[in-house]
Amino acid sequence: MSSSFGTIFRLTTWGESHGPALGVVIEGTPAGIPLAVEDIQFQLDRRRVGQSKVTTPRNEKDRAEILSGVFEGVTTGAPISLITYNADVDSSKYENLRDVFRPGHADYTYWAKYGHRDHRGGGRSSARETWGRVAAGAIARKILATVGVEIYGFAREIGGIRAETFDRDEIERNIVRSPDPIAAEKMIEAIMAVKSENDSLGGIVEVHALNVPVGLGEPTFDKLDGLIGHAMHSIPAVKGVEIGEGFEVTRLRGSQSNDSFTVENGEVRTRSNNSGGLLGGLATGEPILVRIAVKPTSSVARPQQTVDTNMQPREILVEGRHDPSVVPRAVPVAEAMLANVLADLYLRNRAARIGWPPD
Amino acid sequence: MSSSFGTIFRLTTWGESHGPALGVVIEGTPAGIPLAVEDIQFQLDRRRVGQSKVTTPRNEKDRAEILSGVFEGVTTGAPISLITYNADVDSSKYENLRDVFRPGHADYTYWAKYGHRDHRGGGRSSARETWGRVAAGAIARKILATVGVEIYGFAREIGGIRAETFDRDEIERNIVRSPDPIAAEKMIEAIMAVKSENDSLGGIVEVHALNVPVGLGEPTFDKLDGLIGHAMHSIPAVKGVEIGEGFEVTRLRGSQSNDSFTVENGEVRTRSNNSGGLLGGLATGEPILVRIAVKPTSSVARPQQTVDTNMQPREILVEGRHDPSVVPRAVPVAEAMLANVLADLYLRNRAARIGWPPD
Amino acid sequence: MSSSFGTIFRLTTWGESHGPALGVVIEGTPAGIPLAVEDIQFQLDRRRVGQSKVTTPRNEKDRAEILSGVFEGVTTGAPISLITYNADVDSSKYENLRDVFRPGHADYTYWAKYGHRDHRGGGRSSARETWGRVAAGAIARKILATVGVEIYGFAREIGGIRAETFDRDEIERNIVRSPDPIAAEKMIEAIMAVKSENDSLGGIVEVHALNVPVGLGEPTFDKLDGLIGHAMHSIPAVKGVEIGEGFEVTRLRGSQSNDSFTVENGEVRTRSNNSGGLLGGLATGEPILVRIAVKPTSSVARPQQTVDTNMQPREILVEGRHDPSVVPRAVPVAEAMLANVLADLYLRNRAARIGWPPD
Amino acid sequence: MSSSFGTIFRLTTWGESHGPALGVVIEGTPAGIPLAVEDIQFQLDRRRVGQSKVTTPRNEKDRAEILSGVFEGVTTGAPISLITYNADVDSSKYENLRDVFRPGHADYTYWAKYGHRDHRGGGRSSARETWGRVAAGAIARKILATVGVEIYGFAREIGGIRAETFDRDEIERNIVRSPDPIAAEKMIEAIMAVKSENDSLGGIVEVHALNVPVGLGEPTFDKLDGLIGHAMHSIPAVKGVEIGEGFEVTRLRGSQSNDSFTVENGEVRTRSNNSGGLLGGLATGEPILVRIAVKPTSSVARPQQTVDTNMQPREILVEGRHDPSVVPRAVPVAEAMLANVLADLYLRNRAARIGWPPD
Repeated sequence: MSSSFGTIFRLTTWGESHGPALGVVIEGTPAGIPLAVEDIQFQLDRRRVGQSKVTTPRNEKDRAEILSGVFEGVTTGAPISLITYNADVDSSKYENLRDVFRPGHADYTYWAKYGHRDHRGGGRSSARETWGRVAAGAIARKILATVGVEIYGFAREIGGIRAETFDRDEIERNIVRSPDPIAAEKMIEAIMAVKSENDSLGGIVEVHALNVPVGLGEPTFDKLDGLIGHAMHSIPAVKGVEIGEGFEVTRLRGSQSNDSFTVENGEVRTRSNNSGGLLGGLATGEPILVRIAVKPTSSVARPQQTVDTNMQPREILVEGRHDPSVVPRAVPVAEAMLANVLADLYLRNRAARIGWPPD
Repeated sequence: MSSSFGTIFRLTTWGESHGPALGVVIEGTPAGIPLAVEDIQFQLDRRRVGQSKVTTPRNEKDRAEILSGVFEGVTTGAPISLITYNADVDSSKYENLRDVFRPGHADYTYWAKYGHRDHRGGGRSSARETWGRVAAGAIARKILATVGVEIYGFAREIGGIRAETFDRDEIERNIVRSPDPIAAEKMIEAIMAVKSENDSLGGIVEVHALNVPVGLGEPTFDKLDGLIGHAMHSIPAVKGVEIGEGFEVTRLRGSQSNDSFTVENGEVRTRSNNSGGLLGGLATGEPILVRIAVKPTSSVARPQQTVDTNMQPREILVEGRHDPSVVPRAVPVAEAMLANVLADLYLRNRAARIGWPPD
Repeated sequence: MSSSFGTIFRLTTWGESHGPALGVVIEGTPAGIPLAVEDIQFQLDRRRVGQSKVTTPRNEKDRAEILSGVFEGVTTGAPISLITYNADVDSSKYENLRDVFRPGHADYTYWAKYGHRDHRGGGRSSARETWGRVAAGAIARKILATVGVEIYGFAREIGGIRAETFDRDEIERNIVRSPDPIAAEKMIEAIMAVKSENDSLGGIVEVHALNVPVGLGEPTFDKLDGLIGHAMHSIPAVKGVEIGEGFEVTRLRGSQSNDSFTVENGEVRTRSNNSGGLLGGLATGEPILVRIAVKPTSSVARPQQTVDTNMQPREILVEGRHDPSVVPRAVPVAEAMLANVLADLYLRNRAARIGWPPD
Repeated sequence: MSSSFGTIFRLTTWGESHGPALGVVIEGTPAGIPLAVEDIQFQLDRRRVGQSKVTTPRNEKDRAEILSGVFEGVTTGAPISLITYNADVDSSKYENLRDVFRPGHADYTYWAKYGHRDHRGGGRSSARETWGRVAAGAIARKILATVGVEIYGFAREIGGIRAETFDRDEIERNIVRSPDPIAAEKMIEAIMAVKSENDSLGGIVEVHALNVPVGLGEPTFDKLDGLIGHAMHSIPAVKGVEIGEGFEVTRLRGSQSNDSFTVENGEVRTRSNNSGGLLGGLATGEPILVRIAVKPTSSVARPQQTVDTNMQPREILVEGRHDPSVVPRAVPVAEAMLANVLADLYLRNRAARIGWPPD
């Protein structure tokens, strides 16, 4: 079940980077929701390789097919199976990596655990697996839209360059998904520079969810924070997660970090949002704010020191086609995982109190 | 199941801060493991209130009783039920908080979600719930000890004061659990200062796990990272989690952040450990390094602006007994949650490959 | 998690027959449901030992205490922890059974699996564990009552003597819980006869659920049938389960066994109920009918051939206090498990379609 | 998760009877097991439609494709995705059934629950879904074969005609899968007779598992009995399940029904096997014996009384292609579900005691 995520709205992904196909099965979508393949494809295209000069040139259309769970354009409550066939697979570059461990990759750990592994393109550990997460996220968004929840993400930082201004409309206007057009320029420059040096950059993705019903979440272990932490830390290359002010809040005093309550237009609100929209694991109704640390792409076409399955030292050059920075493509993945968490909790929480949340 | 955590090694906590008792049921402990109540009490005492001047003066002995699952000092494989009775409960301080929402607490969100709640001492949302996590963690450590895994934690930072040196032996010698005795002095001073001002401090807890078998973890969603993220973000007051270099790694280049492999004494090792001991969600065998951001205690005995259940503005003063900083007591909780994750994965992973991991 | 049952409404039982206490933790009860300990005790008393001459003389009051999850008489949504202390424990009769396997009991299989076991009174494998199932079932009934579901059970057959008439009011008027007072007499006689011969009888328990909302259940694996099968086959001593006409339906033709639909008072009904109220795993709205086969009590105070842990043949006499027939006490257990299944599905199913089922 | 089954070895089926394809994703197969598509196809062919005159003439080759989880003929531990494309779909026969409820089918209950449904060929509720169960079962058998477990099933009874003799070699020699060749003749005759009358027959399938390791199973709720009950009652058309002597054991006395222990060739054995190889939910090492009641096929091409979605009475004739008795094809399905349960428990139980079960 390690390939599954969620309790009621539950996705199970399958497939390897260079296998015949990849897919996802989504259980728990309520019946009666209009769903077209275009709804899904729109999000997949935002994650797609080859969408700009800052992404890998591997060319996958990533076309989704709906194989079940939708009848005459509307969900039936049955599991939705989505599939995409791998088209532009070039495994030749991986032949010399069959018995060697790429630094920063899962080659060594998979080999140690499983003994036998599909080494081509990272096999199961490839980030191509996130195709299914984004596809499921598109359905999660449809469920959440029924109660007005909106989710969007952006590059807060790439290679240390920070988006200092925020204009939501700017995000999808530039290829790095920065809400600050000036920072966007610099980020693109920085990426092109490391690309020319066969190196890579990391960064920080930020995701917001608006209009989340007050009280959404669960206490104790399945706090909304806990499930977000689980979801985000399961995305390849993520090494850190913050909610609200995150690590910075540790340097404030309690009297400063507490968000005081007030009433606006008959609704309870907080004057600040250091908590990132969560108290006790439940949504306060303020925007949910999440940031994730994305490490630089591990595949760099430079000589690296490593060892092979015979415990012999080796110098390798990882060829193949890679993103000089995965941050722009990590944005839709992070959004999708937040959507997946919220949709699941929205459905689970209908059991918390009869009549809650209101439809 | 929001009060449960784990798949094979699974804990279920129950109880409210001012109820008659608190407890935890632990399923999945293998039979044949010697277990004495002292093994558990030792860890509970490290978490206990009133252990020093930097913790709350509430006086709970937190005595654990083993009610099941152990026969003649050895586990039987049956669920282990542990209980502690609340002794020093003073609910009078909470009577005036019955219909008002304390800033930084879960009062408002619980009220919105459940309609009816136990407001006394935070009820179910109180950090007293972590008693069961630490108790379970003591059993998890016994399981992990059978394969040599060792776990310890410490205060990396309190109120912005950072432990700059590291001596593991120092940690338990000072009341803030700092591995740097000089920083410890400053941290204690800082806590006593805010305490006198009825305010509070946050900080950063760091936890390490040594000798984790190579390959421990799961791919895809239940990456060891994902489960650690889930576990740590479910601890009250935690607002951020980092693994290895965390957010800092985003400012490196791929050629810098990759940990290159080498062979030492016939074992695959990495020359650096930026990844914090995890690749592709599986353990590399290097130390697992986790840091968590702990917000300042929300309960501060100062006037705060808030609203009540009638949507009326109120000024409140949160009395009761509180920790000026929960960081020192958060150390055993974070250790326990890491132990709970690792024990569960150790048991789950026995199914990954026949004969793996070696006992 | 083998000691847990359910997805949203989830119970976890713990405790051994001769340990200090037994208990159950129930997660997922919606907030806002009035709950008194008497609601629970009423059902526990129906399961209690020593309630009549046809049950074991072990004297346990089985008093339940509510330790959490209820505040001022109303559920809060937090886990409900219930406990009972074992009072009338006499382990002396078991000392000579420490290293020997009682026929019909789990001694041998537990020993083979776990190596170390609590042999006293059957330890974890004792039917005393069903205390927690019945306690949870009392809460499940409260949840189900909000939508009008009613559950009752009775002895359909004991020692081959069958209840031929059905008067629901008769059931609790006789000590074997037979709906046919004449059969009741004969059943009691038969039990007293085998009791005097140190032997035991089995029988068939039947349980009905009325007013189950149409559509309750799940497709595919978690069909209501599947969950009922799981629940009932997990009750100690159960060797068979039938739904509706069960095995008899296999001897009909399709044209006979199909329940044809009709409309009565504006509602879809079936003219017969061979299916026992279930089609495709979902409730039809007709009464749900379940029958379970209960084997004769394994503990009989007669010489029996067996072997010990040294693989040596032994003749044993199982002393201790036992039910000459557990059928009457199995009735509330079977009812409780059906209630636990239905309450869980009622809560889960709120996610199946927005607005369904109507509160 | 209603479309998923199992904990460690976990299958998720998807697809509708008349959709483009059907499939199953199987998680938890250990790495290192040789697996060819022929291993799977062999079992699928035993379940296939159109295999003889006693099955439906719908012609589906049911060809399986392996899309993931197997590399160079050996499992990798990654999820295994299997797919088959529907070829011989004829939905025209179902057009007039769009708004009417076939007796004995899930049309009404699905409509009531989901509002919107795929009515063609029963949609999701069709027994075509069992394709995935049988495919997964073929993999489960490969896992179980590593410890010598063997599973086979047969028709114990069809239309009231009982197999009185047992010769395992006979089973696959006749088209009804009867171990008694004389009964087989009569069963075939009986089926052909009802077929000519546009009617159908039910029956009883029996499944045995040999060489199950002693102790396999779980206590309390996930008793092997409980999981078998769950698995079998989730198969379409099943209305009853018996283990060992089942309902008949209720008419014995305890002194008769107990299986006494003895030692044979240094192993603990029982002299009889009334318990069907299970004590306390764990395997005794004796053959596991399971029987399931299969109702007569609901689709009969005769006029039947029913109602439609407008609550109007209707007479319908269910055309389409149907099995006059599904019993012969239910045999491989029941075998597969038993294999799925045992494989899951075998993998789960590796956590029960360090070093158990022996590989």
